[in-house]
Amino acid sequence: HLDKYMQEKLFVLQLVVWGLRGVTRVILANNPLSGALILAALCWASPWQALLGTLGVLASTLTAVIMGQDSAEVSGGLHGFNGMLVSLLMGVFSSAGDWYWWLLLPACLGSATCVFLSSGLSPVLERWDLPVAVFPFNIIIVLYLLCTGPDNPYFPHHPATPPGLLEPNGTELIAVEVMLGIPLGVGQIFACGALWPSLLILGAVLLYSPLLAAHALLGSAVGTLVGLSMAVRHDYLYSGLSGFNGALGCMAVGGLFFTFSWRTHLFAIASAFLSAYADIALSNLLGTVGLPACSWASTLTATLMLLLTGSLAAYRIPIGRVMAP
Amino acid sequence: HLDKYMQEKLFVLQLVVWGLRGVTRVILANNPLSGALILAALCWASPWQALLGTLGVLASTLTAVIMGQDSAEVSGGLHGFNGMLVSLLMGVFSSAGDWYWWLLLPACLGSATCVFLSSGLSPVLERWDLPVAVFPFNIIIVLYLLCTGPDNPYFPHHPATPPGLLEPNGTELIAVEVMLGIPLGVGQIFACGALWPSLLILGAVLLYSPLLAAHALLGSAVGTLVGLSMAVRHDYLYSGLSGFNGALGCMAVGGLFFTFSWRTHLFAIASAFLSAYADIALSNLLGTVGLPACSWASTLTATLMLLLTGSLAAYRIPIGRVMAP
Amino acid sequence: HLDKYMQEKLFVLQLVVWGLRGVTRVILANNPLSGALILAALCWASPWQALLGTLGVLASTLTAVIMGQDSAEVSGGLHGFNGMLVSLLMGVFSSAGDWYWWLLLPACLGSATCVFLSSGLSPVLERWDLPVAVFPFNIIIVLYLLCTGPDNPYFPHHPATPPGLLEPNGTELIAVEVMLGIPLGVGQIFACGALWPSLLILGAVLLYSPLLAAHALLGSAVGTLVGLSMAVRHDYLYSGLSGFNGALGCMAVGGLFFTFSWRTHLFAIASAFLSAYADIALSNLLGTVGLPACSWASTLTATLMLLLTGSLAAYRIPIGRVMAP
Repeated sequence: HLDKYMQEKLFVLQLVVWGLRGVTRVILANNPLSGALILAALCWASPWQALLGTLGVLASTLTAVIMGQDSAEVSGGLHGFNGMLVSLLMGVFSSAGDWYWWLLLPACLGSATCVFLSSGLSPVLERWDLPVAVFPFNIIIVLYLLCTGPDNPYFPHHPATPPGLLEPNGTELIAVEVMLGIPLGVGQIFACGALWPSLLILGAVLLYSPLLAAHALLGSAVGTLVGLSMAVRHDYLYSGLSGFNGALGCMAVGGLFFTFSWRTHLFAIASAFLSAYADIALSNLLGTVGLPACSWASTLTATLMLLLTGSLAAYRIPIGRVMAP
Repeated sequence: HLDKYMQEKLFVLQLVVWGLRGVTRVILANNPLSGALILAALCWASPWQALLGTLGVLASTLTAVIMGQDSAEVSGGLHGFNGMLVSLLMGVFSSAGDWYWWLLLPACLGSATCVFLSSGLSPVLERWDLPVAVFPFNIIIVLYLLCTGPDNPYFPHHPATPPGLLEPNGTELIAVEVMLGIPLGVGQIFACGALWPSLLILGAVLLYSPLLAAHALLGSAVGTLVGLSMAVRHDYLYSGLSGFNGALGCMAVGGLFFTFSWRTHLFAIASAFLSAYADIALSNLLGTVGLPACSWASTLTATLMLLLTGSLAAYRIPIGRVMAP
Repeated sequence: HLDKYMQEKLFVLQLVVWGLRGVTRVILANNPLSGALILAALCWASPWQALLGTLGVLASTLTAVIMGQDSAEVSGGLHGFNGMLVSLLMGVFSSAGDWYWWLLLPACLGSATCVFLSSGLSPVLERWDLPVAVFPFNIIIVLYLLCTGPDNPYFPHHPATPPGLLEPNGTELIAVEVMLGIPLGVGQIFACGALWPSLLILGAVLLYSPLLAAHALLGSAVGTLVGLSMAVRHDYLYSGLSGFNGALGCMAVGGLFFTFSWRTHLFAIASAFLSAYADIALSNLLGTVGLPACSWASTLTATLMLLLTGSLAAYRIPIGRVMAP
């Protein structure tokens, strides 16, 4: 009896560790302690969002266990982060308000479906030694938002506005707010728009790898610069939405998939620029039907960077050994 | 002389068998007798549609013969079903009325083009041992509808309405009609919206394989349930349009590409749910430009299911041996 | 000292040759002399466009050198033509008028980005022995136009109108203008809408290969025919826009990737029809959000043709040896 009890407890404990690893995978790190810090930051910003995120991580990790996915992948948290993002974004876009308990249903189902997509996309992408990354999240959240629409009686949501919309006359850009958008861009990776929690998330990344944190800030700054150069809505800059794709694109190249050198650093900056411009383009396109571009831009850009031949390819770390540190 | 005459007669006879096999391929079966039954059902529902369907099957099968495609594929009907669907859908969406003879021209050309797409997509999909399925049909019909548009002077068509549109106030859902939508969902695979012919089509599937027929009904029921959960237009439920993608997704997993077991059965239900939700999402998206989502959702879902690793993959039948029974 | 000077001069000279080869690659040829003729034709039509084109070729070729791309590819001009097209199209769609010097900035950056896309797409397409072709150009120009939008304060552009829009009543089609659209279709490959420069471009192709030139004219004629059959806007026919995708599709099959025979010739005509219809479909689709379809249709069709199994595949020339003449 005791044995079984212990085993069950052990399984729950393991699940918690897998989940926390999954939380950090969102921001390209892999460390249960950082995961706990990030979860605390989310809880600080909004307990409802933290609940949704936790639920998403657990739902998708458990689905992966049930579906018999590779156990090394499950214990590395590789089946948790997509589910977490789906749940978080469902919560952010829902216009039914916080603590709308019915939302837990699509959050659970959507997170579970991510495992199907991860598992199905991996043999395709594996041919070129590419990771599945957040493709499943991006696909599922777009399908969910398309399914429900702004006026759905059960699960209504806010439509996304394209960043290229013109500002009403006479509004001035406030420099301090733009500056604050840079750290907020790091928080927006978790759909978190509050300043202090965003800084705590940045701290959690710093704990895992200072290099990654530096590239996150750098990428977010590049994204903000790109937003300025394309004259996007002020809102888009202030909230950090223009920065988070740049941050992800910069981190993937500068701190994760390639060994660090000054060449890789230059490519990381190029990747940040490309991600940020592609994000504005895709947001404008998807915004015409009220959809957000999520992290499509940075995911596609990072995938492109991994495919590059030439001088960057020499620094590439094979996917199997990427997640070591 | 007689010899040549016999040979020609033999070729025509063969062509008929290939065509009838092609007709059943639409609904994932492979049996000339079922094909004849289905054709009779279509003729019952609308002789014009039956003519278009027959023309489509013949045009694409003949094109495949001329283009020197693999003869085993041709005689198995694998080059007929896409052409048939293209012709049928052209007829359904045409707003020029029945017996508009000019429509035979695009129907022939569109069906013939399917062979190009089948032949071109197969080396790509073969890498992952995937079937071409109805991708060619889905691509061609979308291109055709985009080319012509609702106001085209030669080939006008009805624009599709997205299923997520709100109902006018005060309309109640009629339970019996929703129930009737379930068998209609099986008929909608052939774009047939009449009850008795739909039942005859279901009978033709039953003749080929009772397991397939059961999964068709189950999938259609799941699709209707999904439609209810997303509060789609009543029309969409009554006509069976919400059911047919679920039916196709359920049949592909439960009765065709995998050996049957209770696990496969559960995955078949999951596949039906996924197909039906994805169909509503895609219909809402494509409906904004007046396009139908056809069977994109179920085709993509079935492809995803075939790619899955983990416990489902163990039951998978290699594509080369799928079509044996 | 002299040695170094000579080397530098040599490098500049080489760069010019690479660039001129890149210019001809746009129209599927490969000959510095033809490149010089085409550049002259562009300069005749509009010096500003010629400047943009030259800049695009140089920017992307230099980026390829810096990024350490395969030197055989660079010297063959394979990294120049996408950049040139991006620059040219940016100039054509810009609504800020000629000699708007700020445009050089996105032209340079966009051209440089093409190298990233070429380099990243090639390992994916190589699996099926496919060329990267103008995919990078098509992707970058669509992203650029999405980024800026018609009302951008820095880089405004004209939105594209879908070809399927209805004509105002009482306008008659002028047969001579339609005829003139056929040679203009060849010029439109370089976004050039003037008659004599278009003929000069055709002459440059003739100089390289008469077969290619014949297929260019044939394809453009097919495209115009297709435009008539779908009753597109008269403008679309007169300007040659309905012809250029057909021309590219016809040239790729009839004069470049396959050895010539009467079968290949028939397939080339089929390819022209397919390209032209697909172009109208895609233009109608992308036109709803104000985007042009560029050469998506012909690029996709040519890729499809290269994938075909059956009797066409026997004539295929492996990509590695295609560019020999």
